[in-house]
Amino acid sequence: MPSTLETVCREALKKITPKSQERNHILKLADDLENKVKAAAEEAGIPAQVRVEGSVAKDTWLSGEPDIDIFMRVPPSISREAFGTTLLGIAKKAMRGLKQTERFAEHPYLEARVDKVRVNVVPCYEVKRGEWLSATDRTPFHTDYVKPLLNKQLSGQVRLLKKFMTGTGVYGAEIKIGGFSGYLCELLVLRYGSFAEALKSAADWKKSEVIDYEGYYKGREDEAKKIFDTPLIVVDPIDKGRNVAAAVREERLSEFVSAARAFLDKPRSEFFYPREAEAYSPKEFVQAMKLRGSALVFVKVGKVEAVPDVLWGQLYRSRRSLRKMLERFDFKVIRDGVWSNEENVNLFTFELETRFLPPIKRHLGPPVEKRAECEKFLEKHLGAERTLAGPSVEGNRWVVGIQRNHTDAVNLLSEKLKDGGRNVGVADLLSQVIARSFEVLVDEEILGLYSSDVEFAGFLTEYLKGRPKWLLSS
Amino acid sequence: MPSTLETVCREALKKITPKSQERNHILKLADDLENKVKAAAEEAGIPAQVRVEGSVAKDTWLSGEPDIDIFMRVPPSISREAFGTTLLGIAKKAMRGLKQTERFAEHPYLEARVDKVRVNVVPCYEVKRGEWLSATDRTPFHTDYVKPLLNKQLSGQVRLLKKFMTGTGVYGAEIKIGGFSGYLCELLVLRYGSFAEALKSAADWKKSEVIDYEGYYKGREDEAKKIFDTPLIVVDPIDKGRNVAAAVREERLSEFVSAARAFLDKPRSEFFYPREAEAYSPKEFVQAMKLRGSALVFVKVGKVEAVPDVLWGQLYRSRRSLRKMLERFDFKVIRDGVWSNEENVNLFTFELETRFLPPIKRHLGPPVEKRAECEKFLEKHLGAERTLAGPSVEGNRWVVGIQRNHTDAVNLLSEKLKDGGRNVGVADLLSQVIARSFEVLVDEEILGLYSSDVEFAGFLTEYLKGRPKWLLSS
Repeated sequence: MPSTLETVCREALKKITPKSQERNHILKLADDLENKVKAAAEEAGIPAQVRVEGSVAKDTWLSGEPDIDIFMRVPPSISREAFGTTLLGIAKKAMRGLKQTERFAEHPYLEARVDKVRVNVVPCYEVKRGEWLSATDRTPFHTDYVKPLLNKQLSGQVRLLKKFMTGTGVYGAEIKIGGFSGYLCELLVLRYGSFAEALKSAADWKKSEVIDYEGYYKGREDEAKKIFDTPLIVVDPIDKGRNVAAAVREERLSEFVSAARAFLDKPRSEFFYPREAEAYSPKEFVQAMKLRGSALVFVKVGKVEAVPDVLWGQLYRSRRSLRKMLERFDFKVIRDGVWSNEENVNLFTFELETRFLPPIKRHLGPPVEKRAECEKFLEKHLGAERTLAGPSVEGNRWVVGIQRNHTDAVNLLSEKLKDGGRNVGVADLLSQVIARSFEVLVDEEILGLYSSDVEFAGFLTEYLKGRPKWLLSS
Repeated sequence: MPSTLETVCREALKKITPKSQERNHILKLADDLENKVKAAAEEAGIPAQVRVEGSVAKDTWLSGEPDIDIFMRVPPSISREAFGTTLLGIAKKAMRGLKQTERFAEHPYLEARVDKVRVNVVPCYEVKRGEWLSATDRTPFHTDYVKPLLNKQLSGQVRLLKKFMTGTGVYGAEIKIGGFSGYLCELLVLRYGSFAEALKSAADWKKSEVIDYEGYYKGREDEAKKIFDTPLIVVDPIDKGRNVAAAVREERLSEFVSAARAFLDKPRSEFFYPREAEAYSPKEFVQAMKLRGSALVFVKVGKVEAVPDVLWGQLYRSRRSLRKMLERFDFKVIRDGVWSNEENVNLFTFELETRFLPPIKRHLGPPVEKRAECEKFLEKHLGAERTLAGPSVEGNRWVVGIQRNHTDAVNLLSEKLKDGGRNVGVADLLSQVIARSFEVLVDEEILGLYSSDVEFAGFLTEYLKGRPKWLLSS
């Protein structure tokens, strides 16, 4: 008997809802840490309102995956610069004895670890609603807005949606993912009433769907579409000028919509708990490549000094630029990809129909009717060294067979990247690293990295299979 | 000192104007043959008006290249069928003792040879202007129209234009050429006053230029464009419903316009008398192919029983269809070509970027928004045997890597043609021959034919150079 949506959800809910022991532990820990931050702020003479925000405050966190967000709200009289100095200092002092990492989103904050629990100590301004001074100023308002609207039942539905999104790879507003934030999940559940109803609605979302819980744009949805102009628009109940789904990339949105349909069609626990994909053995990898007959070209780059959001932004931007560059030189790109361990390896993959193109290239000239253009065209190509055939007239246009500048995609990449590739759109920080060194590898030449890095092998296997984990043939 | 237009034209004119001896000889011959046809018609009891028409009648023929056209105008009471029986019989009888060939355009006629002079004996109906019953009924009207408008000076200009068009490969209204008829040359000279003025005007012709000597469409040129809808429109002075340039293909027109510009820019006798192109030696041919790096694929077909106009119509139509078929299967066609000795060899050439494509092919599916289409797409591709990668979501669309049906252009052509290729648009008569046998050859495999047939070698060399003979680099 196939599982029903109810049984699958009930089972998942059981696993993801924190039991009271875990819950009490986390709440106590959060309380302790909050008090430490309070004390440190007081000691430093900073009049900060310290409070736990986020999923712990709203009770929408997933068992085993708590993030404790502690916010320090400071008056606007304190300068922005102080965020990275005084306030960061307070956070560091409060988290003394814990493993600490300085992070940076729109402004600096501190990440600390207590066992497996991640703690973020985040500064923001204490402002009136709407008078935002920094990107995190809205967070306490979000907490205050959502908390009274949720109850135990609805919190469970939020947890289901978060877990579903995690399992299908669309959870997380960071650049790397470009997916759905926790707050966004909460708003979706509030809007649709339950996890299942949210999926049902998502399954039929149209282009630039507008979700506007407070009805700020009631009857003026088209205006909202124009203002926000993103694939999904979720108006922030506490700020009608902000789109909570601004970070959601079209691809993640499409994947979520597709996953929702697939789950509604055949509910399975794998949507919440995907199988670990098994990587191809090196031999299987070589066989898979042979079967496709395409060429996999890799650009391997070393460490880039940047926080993940910046790194991934640069990687994505550069990937797009390099793909366009390859296409501009007539290489047909089947797919592109990017992988990074966020440490010492950043790697672009371009699957090409062929690595080599023939020397001759058909180049279309002006219509014969345009006399002056024709003269210029003939002057340029007639008898030129690069002219391999023609010029001749085809239909109503001049056409010429010219020699390509680049017949080998590997040489092309090597040449365009040797100075860092800024000219072809490689992003700055990445370009600086590339200017020092990079490697272009083809097909089996990647086997060294493939054999030595399981994570990369997993990535490349999934890339080759090219199919979301949740997508199963019936 | 560079030649001037005047000197080049003066020299050419001297060569192409028949001297009185040749002229008298041809006129006498035409007169004799006309009388023979008259006698044969009388003998057969057919009340035919027999008269010499065409360039001999109008004195616009080129020295060394006379065509004697003898028309038999018969009353409409004589049936169409009689053209191929009684009237052809009369022509045959009249041409007794000469080498004869039965020809067919819109209706049957007889071609005969006196030494190097071609004689056409053509039946048509004697009708009132505008009441045309057969395609050749207008010809006597053309003679009567043009003759009084020409004088010795203008006839010379017509000769120059004809010779220029012959030399640049755009003369001839037959399907193989798709160029300019003699009558069309006469009208152009009448319209513009001289050869040079005709070229100067042609150099600036716009799309669907309307030339309307009698001014039938004065102030309504747009109407003429709509009615005729061809790249060049020359309204027949004796029939405002007929476009004398209907047979002129866009490519020939564009070549003429381009040649006119080139000649005006640098007048040279080569436009009238092109150099004989020297064919590549087989070794040079192989080297030229190597330099391009493309693949030349040939389809070789045997004898097709059809008159040249029908044969070339079928060849051109089939070439277009085969090119489209190759492109539909993702082969990138740089150029196509067709050659025929109008006897036992008909040959298509397709220059491809590559003969082989990789097995994997990116296949774009529907946008995620279209739920029903997505369902169908997934049903079709998910886990299907031909699916090599995916389906996955890219941007807002499903996409899948599927196995190509054809990775080899040679196999593709062989398979699609084995039943004659009618399904892929090969024309009927050709298809019948192909169904019995054909060959697909690649690159050096053509060397057999290349080495044994100078004409073909010349064609293929020109094809590879791909540049009109008159186009010289400065």
